[in-house]
Amino acid sequence: MKRHILSAEQFTRPQLEGIFISADIMRERDHSSLEERRELAGRHMGRQLISLFYEPSTRTRLSFELAAAKQGIGYVSTENAREFSSAAKGETLEDTIRVLGEYNADLLVMRHHETGAAARAAAVAPSHMSVINAGDGKGEHPTQALLDAYTIREHLDRLSDANIVLGGDLRNGRTARSLAKLLARYPGNEFTFVSTPGFEMGDDIKGFLDEHGAQWNETSDAHAAAEDADVMYWTRLQRERLEGGGVTQEQSLVIDQSVLDVMNPKAVIMHPLPRVGEITTDVDNDPRAQYFRQAGNGLYVRMALLDYLLGNEPQTLEFDNVVPLRYKLGHD
Amino acid sequence: MKRHILSAEQFTRPQLEGIFISADIMRERDHSSLEERRELAGRHMGRQLISLFYEPSTRTRLSFELAAAKQGIGYVSTENAREFSSAAKGETLEDTIRVLGEYNADLLVMRHHETGAAARAAAVAPSHMSVINAGDGKGEHPTQALLDAYTIREHLDRLSDANIVLGGDLRNGRTARSLAKLLARYPGNEFTFVSTPGFEMGDDIKGFLDEHGAQWNETSDAHAAAEDADVMYWTRLQRERLEGGGVTQEQSLVIDQSVLDVMNPKAVIMHPLPRVGEITTDVDNDPRAQYFRQAGNGLYVRMALLDYLLGNEPQTLEFDNVVPLRYKLGHD
Amino acid sequence: MKRHILSAEQFTRPQLEGIFISADIMRERDHSSLEERRELAGRHMGRQLISLFYEPSTRTRLSFELAAAKQGIGYVSTENAREFSSAAKGETLEDTIRVLGEYNADLLVMRHHETGAAARAAAVAPSHMSVINAGDGKGEHPTQALLDAYTIREHLDRLSDANIVLGGDLRNGRTARSLAKLLARYPGNEFTFVSTPGFEMGDDIKGFLDEHGAQWNETSDAHAAAEDADVMYWTRLQRERLEGGGVTQEQSLVIDQSVLDVMNPKAVIMHPLPRVGEITTDVDNDPRAQYFRQAGNGLYVRMALLDYLLGNEPQTLEFDNVVPLRYKLGHD
Repeated sequence: MKRHILSAEQFTRPQLEGIFISADIMRERDHSSLEERRELAGRHMGRQLISLFYEPSTRTRLSFELAAAKQGIGYVSTENAREFSSAAKGETLEDTIRVLGEYNADLLVMRHHETGAAARAAAVAPSHMSVINAGDGKGEHPTQALLDAYTIREHLDRLSDANIVLGGDLRNGRTARSLAKLLARYPGNEFTFVSTPGFEMGDDIKGFLDEHGAQWNETSDAHAAAEDADVMYWTRLQRERLEGGGVTQEQSLVIDQSVLDVMNPKAVIMHPLPRVGEITTDVDNDPRAQYFRQAGNGLYVRMALLDYLLGNEPQTLEFDNVVPLRYKLGHD
Repeated sequence: MKRHILSAEQFTRPQLEGIFISADIMRERDHSSLEERRELAGRHMGRQLISLFYEPSTRTRLSFELAAAKQGIGYVSTENAREFSSAAKGETLEDTIRVLGEYNADLLVMRHHETGAAARAAAVAPSHMSVINAGDGKGEHPTQALLDAYTIREHLDRLSDANIVLGGDLRNGRTARSLAKLLARYPGNEFTFVSTPGFEMGDDIKGFLDEHGAQWNETSDAHAAAEDADVMYWTRLQRERLEGGGVTQEQSLVIDQSVLDVMNPKAVIMHPLPRVGEITTDVDNDPRAQYFRQAGNGLYVRMALLDYLLGNEPQTLEFDNVVPLRYKLGHD
Repeated sequence: MKRHILSAEQFTRPQLEGIFISADIMRERDHSSLEERRELAGRHMGRQLISLFYEPSTRTRLSFELAAAKQGIGYVSTENAREFSSAAKGETLEDTIRVLGEYNADLLVMRHHETGAAARAAAVAPSHMSVINAGDGKGEHPTQALLDAYTIREHLDRLSDANIVLGGDLRNGRTARSLAKLLARYPGNEFTFVSTPGFEMGDDIKGFLDEHGAQWNETSDAHAAAEDADVMYWTRLQRERLEGGGVTQEQSLVIDQSVLDVMNPKAVIMHPLPRVGEITTDVDNDPRAQYFRQAGNGLYVRMALLDYLLGNEPQTLEFDNVVPLRYKLGHD
């Protein structure tokens, strides 16, 4: 009965499609009338969420908490559990989760600095409480991968048969790695990795793509890669890790007007944010720049996931009429 | 359509009066029956507020969040965004606001350490989101100025024709400066600045009063100033800035029983708080001591402002019957 | 009219019994249908709580805030008031409370680092606001004592005529001391203190037990004490305070399978948590290990206390039918 969100890989493609349709509906409801928003705000009254962040992450935390607030889920929050909580007194994560599990909250959103922490939490969580991984060290950040895929689907109307260009710090960036793995499960996607020496995509991901029969190549020329891109997914350079010719290397990885000039007019530019210069601000007003919308999609994907964990199974067949009807008919 | 609260100077006098009447009503409703409080708590269900504090300010933050909670506005909060948020990773304020703007919250309350930050936030906020400046460095703190004026109005029944004594650290204190500018717009006010060398009111404010035809004078004698005062508005001395004869200088700026003895029995003593000795605690029980009430007024002025920003225009004509009726008739 | 929760000793035994019955009901309602939880979540709409933590305490804070959320009490929160609030600017606790008192919240939960802080807060709180002591330095933490007693009552079906073994750091541990004092008021309890040199129960508590005619003895042998125990209440060793033969001393105070082997099958093992090794994890699955349940009971005791402070007097006579009926008949 208990369901957790631990990894983006746990979902079947139909489940993902169901969640994405739920996210569509959440966005539509949230942007329609105030009456609709009021109704939504009463939807999950009586449910509670614990927001447990061992590492600060304002953006992720606020979007989860807004996803709760907008659906009437009561929540309690700690924004720096590592320093403030009994963890500082030597309590194990397992003990902390078992205590919180006694509070009969329905949902626990957790960001932790150690890889595998979310799975450890899920292993000891009581049967009524779902654990949602909001990032565990170098491990997973599944809601980020889902919102990335959702944004591509929103703009291309598909998750397959696309030229996906991933650029920036592919070595250390968790989001690009996760997205590559997620999209490898859809047919016909081709990947181009754009990075400079020392920041290349890891061999594990390349091997994963090979196993799934997905084409990939790599380059350090963002302009060349941009020409055929359906998706330009860019990530933050960790400047402090750049050596020697850092500035020059970096310059070749910046998306600016000159990259826009060669891009397909229907392509989409994405970035998990924050950015620190690798996309210039003059790009922001281009209709292909969707990174802010992408961040906002995080809210709606999280609303859909919370709703799913509270028992509203996304439909996996006949989405087009079943899921919307479910809402319109007041299913709850 | 979008309205922001960036500066106390943005309001016309009729708008201020409308907001003050709304604040009166909010206070009355909050202090009447539990039924009334329950109704209020459902008033803005479906609306959301983001509370974004780059600098800690427990008092201001809690009063804004209570102003939301008491009206059923869902809120999410961060109390130390500077250290915890992606600002630490180098994200610009503009990017942060654009991301939060995608979350479709109606209201964003922001405290920031840089002058002009609120205006920068408002410039990039989406059309559905109002930005409220809760203090931007040495810049503005408009809701403080409004609650100060509201408190004077509450006790004198007017904002004009008053002897206003401003004392303490007038050089560095933002609140006294803002209040002087606000009251200069009402006729017949006379200002007395009480401070010691190095803490005098700035020439910019003196010039502003001259331009508006308001009388002012300055002294270092709190007792003399108190004799004719309708309002004694006192501010905290930054002790660390006092030089040499600090203790003596300071002593002349303390409000204690000896000052009460010479004051008009209908005058009001105000202070933005916290205080650290410049009003002695034996003054607290005097009916003229209104600094705690003043702080509480912050809640009701903020409730009125949130309500205003959510579309309930304060009436600017015929306040006395129109605004109260608006509430009594269940307008929403 | 105003009631505060400052000390576990303020309650009469019938009042305690009333609160415990309310806690039973809160637990039952929270674990029954979603409809029941929804109704509970609307119960105290229009009420507000201020959660003011000068010291971090994630567990206590989250359980109080969940106790509010589950009953529809709006709350605002600060998790590190000492560093973030105007206390850092030199404001007295009294001034802070008087300001917060103006916000017309019904409840103020406070954790403070100074003994006596809660009583000081209560002394200046306005008549409509109840102060709840969530721990004041080396002073009291009454809700912890209540949840400890509640857990014993839950498992033994009585608070009298029990063999109570208290072990660990009895010198410095506030919880064991408070529990001893609370249980001394019930007839027939016998106490065994298990500790190593330097960590013995203080003479003040021993004297208190003597005055109340309660038997006590002390030992450093956990196994011997366990044989007759109805309750094994264990506490955390402050390892940094252990001298010389620390490891050996400590070992004798660990509850592990060998202690379980000699314990009464109906006894209960409790711990205020966090633990750091003084109960081994292989004990967790034993049905006598109730420390996680005990932590969860904190939520329900706090729900009952908030409800009590909001005017729902726990019945002190004929509990068995009166109190449950009160709820079932929709009394509010």
